[in-house]
Amino acid sequence: MIDYQKRRGDMYDLMAREGIALAFFEDAEGRRDPTVRWLSGHPGDALLFLTVDRKTILVPWDVNLAVLYGQADSIVPYGVFDRRPLTALQGVAKRLKIPRGSKIEIPPVTPYLLFLEYVGGLSDFDIICRNSGIHGEAEKLRAVKDEEEIRIYRTVAGITNELISLLEENIRSGKLKTEADAALFIEAEARGQGCEGTGFTTLAAGPDRSYGIHAFPPYTAAPFAGRGLSILDFGLKYSGYTTDVTLTFVRDPSPAQEKLLALTEKAYKLALSLVEDGRPAREIARMVDILFGKSKKAMPHGLGHGIGLQEHESPAIRDREDNGWILKPGMIFTLEPGLYDPSLGGCRLENDVLLTETGAEALTEARIVRL
Amino acid sequence: MIDYQKRRGDMYDLMAREGIALAFFEDAEGRRDPTVRWLSGHPGDALLFLTVDRKTILVPWDVNLAVLYGQADSIVPYGVFDRRPLTALQGVAKRLKIPRGSKIEIPPVTPYLLFLEYVGGLSDFDIICRNSGIHGEAEKLRAVKDEEEIRIYRTVAGITNELISLLEENIRSGKLKTEADAALFIEAEARGQGCEGTGFTTLAAGPDRSYGIHAFPPYTAAPFAGRGLSILDFGLKYSGYTTDVTLTFVRDPSPAQEKLLALTEKAYKLALSLVEDGRPAREIARMVDILFGKSKKAMPHGLGHGIGLQEHESPAIRDREDNGWILKPGMIFTLEPGLYDPSLGGCRLENDVLLTETGAEALTEARIVRL
Repeated sequence: MIDYQKRRGDMYDLMAREGIALAFFEDAEGRRDPTVRWLSGHPGDALLFLTVDRKTILVPWDVNLAVLYGQADSIVPYGVFDRRPLTALQGVAKRLKIPRGSKIEIPPVTPYLLFLEYVGGLSDFDIICRNSGIHGEAEKLRAVKDEEEIRIYRTVAGITNELISLLEENIRSGKLKTEADAALFIEAEARGQGCEGTGFTTLAAGPDRSYGIHAFPPYTAAPFAGRGLSILDFGLKYSGYTTDVTLTFVRDPSPAQEKLLALTEKAYKLALSLVEDGRPAREIARMVDILFGKSKKAMPHGLGHGIGLQEHESPAIRDREDNGWILKPGMIFTLEPGLYDPSLGGCRLENDVLLTETGAEALTEARIVRL
Repeated sequence: MIDYQKRRGDMYDLMAREGIALAFFEDAEGRRDPTVRWLSGHPGDALLFLTVDRKTILVPWDVNLAVLYGQADSIVPYGVFDRRPLTALQGVAKRLKIPRGSKIEIPPVTPYLLFLEYVGGLSDFDIICRNSGIHGEAEKLRAVKDEEEIRIYRTVAGITNELISLLEENIRSGKLKTEADAALFIEAEARGQGCEGTGFTTLAAGPDRSYGIHAFPPYTAAPFAGRGLSILDFGLKYSGYTTDVTLTFVRDPSPAQEKLLALTEKAYKLALSLVEDGRPAREIARMVDILFGKSKKAMPHGLGHGIGLQEHESPAIRDREDNGWILKPGMIFTLEPGLYDPSLGGCRLENDVLLTETGAEALTEARIVRL
């Protein structure tokens, strides 16, 4: 069982230390934040208010759903507040008798114009909006998975690995012929295995269009796994948590394609070998970029990213100045080196890696499959 | 052919009138804005800069994709700007020699903290962020579909209607047994008919859980269309534009369930009869709320919403103070009355309506299907 009380307790403690009377998280269309789910179990479309007096109020769009899934001290339908965040914030502050002059912390992704509405509509309070506050702390905590989350990940990685083998088998046998065949096989198997679904739209790109980083459209009725390089990028979502893997299927590769594949596999092995407690995530990405650079190749995306309740979360595994993430036991993230060329096609190898107290452990078994 | 030049021309004219030297649109993870596609044809993950000198610069994540789809005066890879919006904005302002002191308009959804970055990093310029500017104008223009968009909608509505009939046939015959069967049949047919995919995650909720406004999980391996009320909500995306329909499947309804169904159908007919040029959208929603209220029922969501490149866009069809939308010929929107009850289940009837010069035209043929 996930201990939502403990997670909220960490938030309350921080609020007390920082003198924040009221904070809220928002999960809404256009501003998704599964921290609402992480703190309450409620799967989405809701506001979640936390007070320094250690109370949590869930304000869901769909009350029936909240009654089934949400754990909070009270549930107030969003409709009561006309489904507007300012009205909800004003209403909750009033109901809870938050003292005038108190600090109220709002999400760091709040649009500027909504920020102005909050400041104008709550002029008795001190509105705080920052990256490094309550929300930044939740992001940091979410980046290090707890025992229950690791247990869930072992389960969903197991389902993902069985599916990888089934995909290989059915593509080899010719049963799955098109991009859509492969993608819909994944969707069907996901439901059959009790997953909530896929964690994001599956990308299945046959040889003619595998050079796209994110194939558009994501998958079509076109043939898959014909001569050349085909990419299959998918994740299964189980109890909220998603895997994220990419397989490359190879048929009759040219020497130039073999070179891309070998370099990608080499980059993956190098990256995995560098995963250790205390390593700056940026360093791993830089080493891979250097490896590719030696062969006059460049990867047009980051090396990896944390996974969890979101398909992309912290820690970032990319070589950018603002990436200060240091790897720690409990972090689960992708390593996904890839190379793309309009004439040769693309290849990517992506697995999900857990850093334990004793070292890196690849949870998933995606691979380059030679047909 | 879509005339992107004309659309951009309208934007340039407005920029000249309002004295805006440079404006940009952003389509990125967490801040989706298909106005980028509407103005350039590029399907996603990019910044689009427009200057008062009538130039458009596309800054895509994936250059190969931009070369295939994007129409702009120039294309600059986002990687050149370290894939950061501030760096891109600074870089473009410099390349184009935007004069100091000029007004630069940024998206109204820009987060407060990013707004501060822009203001700090572009202190030589006047940063404008407002709802009613260039971006608000694009929203208004997008709400009224042009001839080419209406042609696309007639095509995708036709495909949707054929699929509705196929779904009815295959559910009646027992070929589609589970929620996943129905949802994956839709996905497969979409690709078979040349659609980009579905416009949003299909919701298929059997009798036990149809009372949820948005079923969670969206669809499962559980039976569909058994005794009671089952809801199927889906849309097909074609050339970027999505339909959005909901069917309710009914088997052996109780008198109380019959009452819900009759009231929902009555509400739908009432709403459709009220669609006319010049009608405030809010009024239609209010009339439906009043109808439901007379039977002591309430609908826990809005009556409808515009559709287009996004599953939810303008005009809003809901009864809220801030809804000032007036219906005009060329608008395409959903009407989707629904009633939900934890013990009876839910029903919703949703179709896509085009307002023409001569009146309302339901483009889609979703229905309540009695099995």
